[in-house]
Amino acid sequence: MAEKRVYFFGNGKAEGNAKMKELLGGKGANLAEMTNLGVPVPPGFTIATKVCGEYYKSGGKWPKGLAEEVAANLAKLEKAMGMRLGDPERPLLVSVRSGAASSMPGMMDTVLNLGLNDDVIEGIIRKTGNPRFAWDIYRRFIDMFGDVVMGCDHEYFEEKIHAAKKKAGVEVDSELSAEQLHAVVEEYKKVYKQHVGKMFPQDGMDQLKHAIDAVFGSWNGARAVRYRELNKITGLLGTAVNVQAMVFGNMGEDCGTGVCFTRNPSTGQKEFYGEFLMNAQGEDVVAGIRTPIELSKLNKVMPKAYKELTRLMTRLEKHYKDMQDMEFTIQEKKLYILQTRTGKRTAPAAVRIAVDMVNERLIPKKDAVMRVTPDQLDQLLHPHFDAKAKRDVIASGLPASPGAAVGQVVFTADTAEEWRDKGKKVILVRKETSPEDIGGMDAAEGILTAFGGMTSHAAVVARGMGKCCVAGVAGLNIDYVTKKFTTGKVTVKEGDWISLDGSKGEVIKGQVPTVEPELSGEFGKFMKICDQIRTLGIRTNADTPADSKRARDFGAEGIGLTRTEHMFFEGDRIWPVRQMILAADDYAAMLTNLDMAENDKARKAVEKEYSVAKKQFEGALKQLLPLQRGDFEGIFTAMAGLPVTVRLLDPPLHEFLPQDAASQAEMARRLGVKPKVVQEKVASLHEFNPMLGHRGCRLSITYPAIARMQGRAIIEAALNVKKKGKKVLPEIMIPLVGTVAELKIVKDDIVDEINAVFKERKAKIPYMVGTMIEVPRAALTADEIATEAQFFSFGTNDLTQMTMGFSRDDAGKFLGEYVRKGIYKDDPFQKLDQTGVGKLVEMGTKLGRKVRKNLKVGICGEHGGEPSSIEFCHRVGMNYVSCSPFRVPIARLAAAQAAVRNK
Amino acid sequence: MAEKRVYFFGNGKAEGNAKMKELLGGKGANLAEMTNLGVPVPPGFTIATKVCGEYYKSGGKWPKGLAEEVAANLAKLEKAMGMRLGDPERPLLVSVRSGAASSMPGMMDTVLNLGLNDDVIEGIIRKTGNPRFAWDIYRRFIDMFGDVVMGCDHEYFEEKIHAAKKKAGVEVDSELSAEQLHAVVEEYKKVYKQHVGKMFPQDGMDQLKHAIDAVFGSWNGARAVRYRELNKITGLLGTAVNVQAMVFGNMGEDCGTGVCFTRNPSTGQKEFYGEFLMNAQGEDVVAGIRTPIELSKLNKVMPKAYKELTRLMTRLEKHYKDMQDMEFTIQEKKLYILQTRTGKRTAPAAVRIAVDMVNERLIPKKDAVMRVTPDQLDQLLHPHFDAKAKRDVIASGLPASPGAAVGQVVFTADTAEEWRDKGKKVILVRKETSPEDIGGMDAAEGILTAFGGMTSHAAVVARGMGKCCVAGVAGLNIDYVTKKFTTGKVTVKEGDWISLDGSKGEVIKGQVPTVEPELSGEFGKFMKICDQIRTLGIRTNADTPADSKRARDFGAEGIGLTRTEHMFFEGDRIWPVRQMILAADDYAAMLTNLDMAENDKARKAVEKEYSVAKKQFEGALKQLLPLQRGDFEGIFTAMAGLPVTVRLLDPPLHEFLPQDAASQAEMARRLGVKPKVVQEKVASLHEFNPMLGHRGCRLSITYPAIARMQGRAIIEAALNVKKKGKKVLPEIMIPLVGTVAELKIVKDDIVDEINAVFKERKAKIPYMVGTMIEVPRAALTADEIATEAQFFSFGTNDLTQMTMGFSRDDAGKFLGEYVRKGIYKDDPFQKLDQTGVGKLVEMGTKLGRKVRKNLKVGICGEHGGEPSSIEFCHRVGMNYVSCSPFRVPIARLAAAQAAVRNK
Repeated sequence: MAEKRVYFFGNGKAEGNAKMKELLGGKGANLAEMTNLGVPVPPGFTIATKVCGEYYKSGGKWPKGLAEEVAANLAKLEKAMGMRLGDPERPLLVSVRSGAASSMPGMMDTVLNLGLNDDVIEGIIRKTGNPRFAWDIYRRFIDMFGDVVMGCDHEYFEEKIHAAKKKAGVEVDSELSAEQLHAVVEEYKKVYKQHVGKMFPQDGMDQLKHAIDAVFGSWNGARAVRYRELNKITGLLGTAVNVQAMVFGNMGEDCGTGVCFTRNPSTGQKEFYGEFLMNAQGEDVVAGIRTPIELSKLNKVMPKAYKELTRLMTRLEKHYKDMQDMEFTIQEKKLYILQTRTGKRTAPAAVRIAVDMVNERLIPKKDAVMRVTPDQLDQLLHPHFDAKAKRDVIASGLPASPGAAVGQVVFTADTAEEWRDKGKKVILVRKETSPEDIGGMDAAEGILTAFGGMTSHAAVVARGMGKCCVAGVAGLNIDYVTKKFTTGKVTVKEGDWISLDGSKGEVIKGQVPTVEPELSGEFGKFMKICDQIRTLGIRTNADTPADSKRARDFGAEGIGLTRTEHMFFEGDRIWPVRQMILAADDYAAMLTNLDMAENDKARKAVEKEYSVAKKQFEGALKQLLPLQRGDFEGIFTAMAGLPVTVRLLDPPLHEFLPQDAASQAEMARRLGVKPKVVQEKVASLHEFNPMLGHRGCRLSITYPAIARMQGRAIIEAALNVKKKGKKVLPEIMIPLVGTVAELKIVKDDIVDEINAVFKERKAKIPYMVGTMIEVPRAALTADEIATEAQFFSFGTNDLTQMTMGFSRDDAGKFLGEYVRKGIYKDDPFQKLDQTGVGKLVEMGTKLGRKVRKNLKVGICGEHGGEPSSIEFCHRVGMNYVSCSPFRVPIARLAAAQAAVRNK
Repeated sequence: MAEKRVYFFGNGKAEGNAKMKELLGGKGANLAEMTNLGVPVPPGFTIATKVCGEYYKSGGKWPKGLAEEVAANLAKLEKAMGMRLGDPERPLLVSVRSGAASSMPGMMDTVLNLGLNDDVIEGIIRKTGNPRFAWDIYRRFIDMFGDVVMGCDHEYFEEKIHAAKKKAGVEVDSELSAEQLHAVVEEYKKVYKQHVGKMFPQDGMDQLKHAIDAVFGSWNGARAVRYRELNKITGLLGTAVNVQAMVFGNMGEDCGTGVCFTRNPSTGQKEFYGEFLMNAQGEDVVAGIRTPIELSKLNKVMPKAYKELTRLMTRLEKHYKDMQDMEFTIQEKKLYILQTRTGKRTAPAAVRIAVDMVNERLIPKKDAVMRVTPDQLDQLLHPHFDAKAKRDVIASGLPASPGAAVGQVVFTADTAEEWRDKGKKVILVRKETSPEDIGGMDAAEGILTAFGGMTSHAAVVARGMGKCCVAGVAGLNIDYVTKKFTTGKVTVKEGDWISLDGSKGEVIKGQVPTVEPELSGEFGKFMKICDQIRTLGIRTNADTPADSKRARDFGAEGIGLTRTEHMFFEGDRIWPVRQMILAADDYAAMLTNLDMAENDKARKAVEKEYSVAKKQFEGALKQLLPLQRGDFEGIFTAMAGLPVTVRLLDPPLHEFLPQDAASQAEMARRLGVKPKVVQEKVASLHEFNPMLGHRGCRLSITYPAIARMQGRAIIEAALNVKKKGKKVLPEIMIPLVGTVAELKIVKDDIVDEINAVFKERKAKIPYMVGTMIEVPRAALTADEIATEAQFFSFGTNDLTQMTMGFSRDDAGKFLGEYVRKGIYKDDPFQKLDQTGVGKLVEMGTKLGRKVRKNLKVGICGEHGGEPSSIEFCHRVGMNYVSCSPFRVPIARLAAAQAAVRNK
């Protein structure tokens, strides 16, 4: 017996099944499976993938026996349908599709209605009495066959119909009459002849053979080959060819067509949902010319078909264990399922369906967590604009922080706070934001910046606040003096209303109505399922008690990053800090000279010489200590029982000084020095590359007293909160460490100060000292660093900047182009670059654990809230990820999905 | 028989030898070895190191039998010297010294003249008739014994002699009379009694026992323990104790003392060299009160001793195979060698001695290359100030580029060039330098900057030019407007003369006379020896034909880095470049839109829209092409037959625009645009962290036409030079690559352009395309990058910045403190950080060669000229290092030494 090459499916039985994907391709195996399930799919047959290989081996010839096998299966198909290819009275029309074992763009698209020819058309006209319909499908078939199968560009056909419309004086295709369409068909045939070099084939078998050849040919088409190369797909036999009978819902009043869902795709409710039209084609349902009818009405019109359909819906959902989106056609009362696939759904529906299906014991929890995408969850967490509202988009930028915001434009942080205090809603518009703007950002509904990328200051802070932000709007010209901004031709003044769509990055004129998010009870249930599945801990980046509380409500299991910068900026604190900075150089010189002094006398002389600097510097710290202690008490209280990682002061000192002349003059006046002193200090602190400058633990090396003050504030706060009966787990984190030596120096200082506190208070509390791994060298020498660090937290924002050599504030100028050109698949500040930066993260984790087995490892960069990065962290074996409060639920989901994927 | 603990040496025979270092310590083994060689060292004995261990084990007691063994050896020593401890007539005096198997600071220093007491002093006075001398050595002994042996601080003794001098109304010790010194001795004894709690011991054996105990005790002194910890010295038994007879050259006219060298330490000439004094002590030769006599004269005074001495000099040099520096004493006509050690020598002497000794077959070549330090070679390559000249140092900074420069102060590059053209010698003084200053730097004798570190622009360029530079002078206040600078209280105006010492980092007022370097024939011979030993290739960083020529003369085997920035700056070229930059945004927009255009028509519309930008951008490149081609022709001609690595444009575009308002206005006038256009362009190109900004190959991604122009210029130049019969080996280097995808895009562009050139010229030439590895990610993914790169060149300047998170322009603010505190042992911009950055270099090299076995790997950062970094490169298996022309000989030496050390 000859080798079997063609597999039939139809009449409730198929020669293939779902397991034969390699041989029949994904589509062929699926059609076979559905047939075997008793689903009435239109019958047909699949030419196996291996035939494609044989075809190429023989230089593009059909293997011996294939023609006969195709003919035999076609005969079987004709019998099953009671129709025949080319028979004008009962014409069998078929579709031809490619289908390899893996889905693969670049191969041949569908050819529909194969089998049409001049005779068949006449038959159809006779039968339907609708010549317009007949000529229209014929001209479409010639076009599709010419373009897809014979390589005669679609444009050539378009020119002809364009000319016909012009001649007829009409705008759209549907206005052409039957006669005009008939003329178009004749034109199309000419086009075909001219470009293909042959007459349009009238023989159905001839058409079919060409179509099958075209499918085989597309397997080695440039795009398909390139796709396989890029995705490293090798070892496939070829593509299968699926030939399937066409069915029609528009052949009379006993025909119809529709779309249905096994659950409500909008709400997730468990109910049959869908719509249909009698005597219509699938596209009529979509086109909206006739109004489709609600599915349940089908029960009245065709109860048998309806019953059959609902039976199949139940059957298929149970089989595929997910909500199905099905297309059906009823041809002469017979129901055909054209397609069933997993149905798209809204975010609330996704959550509800996942929870319900677990309750129904249809799917296990590990499957349920895969049914909601992190993006869907994100949608649930932010308000959004009413989808029906009109939008006058005046500019577009980066969707830096999702959500919708409406407010009046202000240009300074101070104005934002003032107006907010007066009960106004404001949008803060800045060229870029800086830590000085925090108050204003907090006061604003949303933030709009002209510069900066997805991880610019504005973006990061806004996401942290769960606040809408559009950043990096090219062409946004802001004039702070006249309090105006322009985008192209639109000018917006202070006080004008605008709306920001943080999910799309759009700036909209006026007030767009918003819809508040609704976190239904299902949301909480779903999150619980996620928690049961995930193994990765989820912490949050939170700098205030309010943020801590919010994050805890969202399910955070601790704080992975408390930045302390704001504890130096906020309110009047900035003044002692500025005083301190003015004294800093002399203070550092004093420390150096004390170091070098040989005896007490010399030391005293040094202290005397620098007594002013000493007084100012240490005096400032004394003022800050109780304030920061209070800050920490608030945070520890909000996070009682959970660990809190506090990062010591990180930014370079110049960020605390005003940059414009007026504010400098004001600072001079207030601190009682000459303006020149302030100007010179600003100049002397200027750095060419502040990102790589005097910041992080480098400050603690130069000014150990600052780290000591912070260490003291943290531990005193912890003891105070503990006294109130609450459990506090402080973790002190030293930033920007590059070598174990600097970590040790700073750690020793802090530990020394903490021991002093313990002694003074006659009380102790367990605490940890660890470090951020954000300088590449730290990751490379993590085995040395772990000898001093009790935990690692990967600061992947800076680690990405340094490892890739991008400044995140500047990269906007070229990074877009890099992503567009595919140089980097994603913005590495949004998704962790696993190949490069990830290699360092993995290396650092392994090296660290080599010397300290129980080293706690986490991540506190922006990536800690991004799903693919979270999965990476899971794989690397981290203990936790830390992200902004609003990302916590997303991280919980992503961690659960990571656990499932990597089991 | 009891275990042997004490080893005698004397009378031409020793019980130990050089191989017994572990047991006798380094010093003891050496004394034994010299004795065995027949060198008349003063006799003595060594208590073995293991005794120290026994001493500690028994809780600080002498092991049984040791006292007897010491006494027996002392008796032997007394017999050998014909003297006795404590005998006033023929008193034996001894020295006591520690000495472990490895040299170790922190242990006990020498105690001299042990054996002195009140009786012996009287004897000495009688014998010498010089009571002043006697009381002086006695008071010194009490001080030394009290301080070193008994722990009675030297300061207490100092107070007494201070008081005595005050009382006597004299300034210096030597002005005190015998009586006054006698009184001091009595005071010293009181001090001793008060602090030690006992009388000063009069018994020589008692003194000796205390001294031996003190040596044992010092083994576990805090400093010695810490030193062993830090240097991970373990497994040593303890310290040995060396007791050796004192000999005196001042006991009469048949006595003398001197110092001699087996070769001239100043010139290296093979001749006996040295000086002596009759009836004198060693310190008299050094003190300069009496004028020492030239060594050969000794032949007349004491022919026998002279003959013996020269015989010993020859013997010892042959034995130790290096030039010896010896101290000798003649006591009553008997010659003693007190010490022989490898002699210090000047740089020219070091070279000459190494070459001569190879010729004499005294040492193999591999030893010869170890005899000259890279620092010595460096001295030979730069002019230096006359050591005798007076210096009025007005400020100090970093020794950024060695050499000596004298000139008149100017404050702008333009003035430097103008004045130079008028025949003046100038020193260019800038706050910092930028590429715009290159012309002025070239015109200047030396460069002085207020900011920037050892690898600041000024430093790097100056070293490249072999030009003296002092950088980062703290407190140097420059006022460009009034054309003055001040350092503390000195003000220097334009036109004033100053001198710079680039080796010391000193700024000197006025003109200090200089001495030109002399590269004798020996230099060339020595370099040849180095070349025979080394396996690492040495290339140079050279941007011009003159530099290339110079480097070639210095022995460079090719160019490892030709920067092309200056080819965009020089002379009038800056104008088309600026024109190009003004058009750049629109040009880039055009490229993007062309990319997205769907058909020819759309493409034409885009080109029309941007026709002005296109014309300006491409027009500028057309102007630059022939100029750069000419530049390359010059370099290729100078380097004919050797490979030349050309780096494509690297700096961000803003470096080509003027930063001050006046120059911006001038630019606007010249290019016929409004000043605002220039200002806006400067503002739009501003970067927060330019180091991590839009530069390197990122420019080639945005503006492929620039890379294409450079590729064309290189290859057209290569073909032109080849036509003249010269061999050209161009290697095109793409900078700042972070991922293989961007390398591939830029490489494909260049290769495409080069193929076009080949086609036009109907000629070909072999070439390579490779990349700099300077972004950490490139090293981490070197296996991917090597699939496209034919060579790697590690740009360790930037790699260090990014890996360690330091900006080299800013790190000056804290790096000094880091090095001072030992956080980093060395400035990582000077010496490659082998632990961190080196790990990436090694990883990159290995990963790269994994996919491309014959991958050529080099280094072109500043480290390429630094010896310890060169050794690292050798160990990692690089093919070559590349350094500035003046560092080439040093690199050749360092490479040879690396080969010897790592055989």
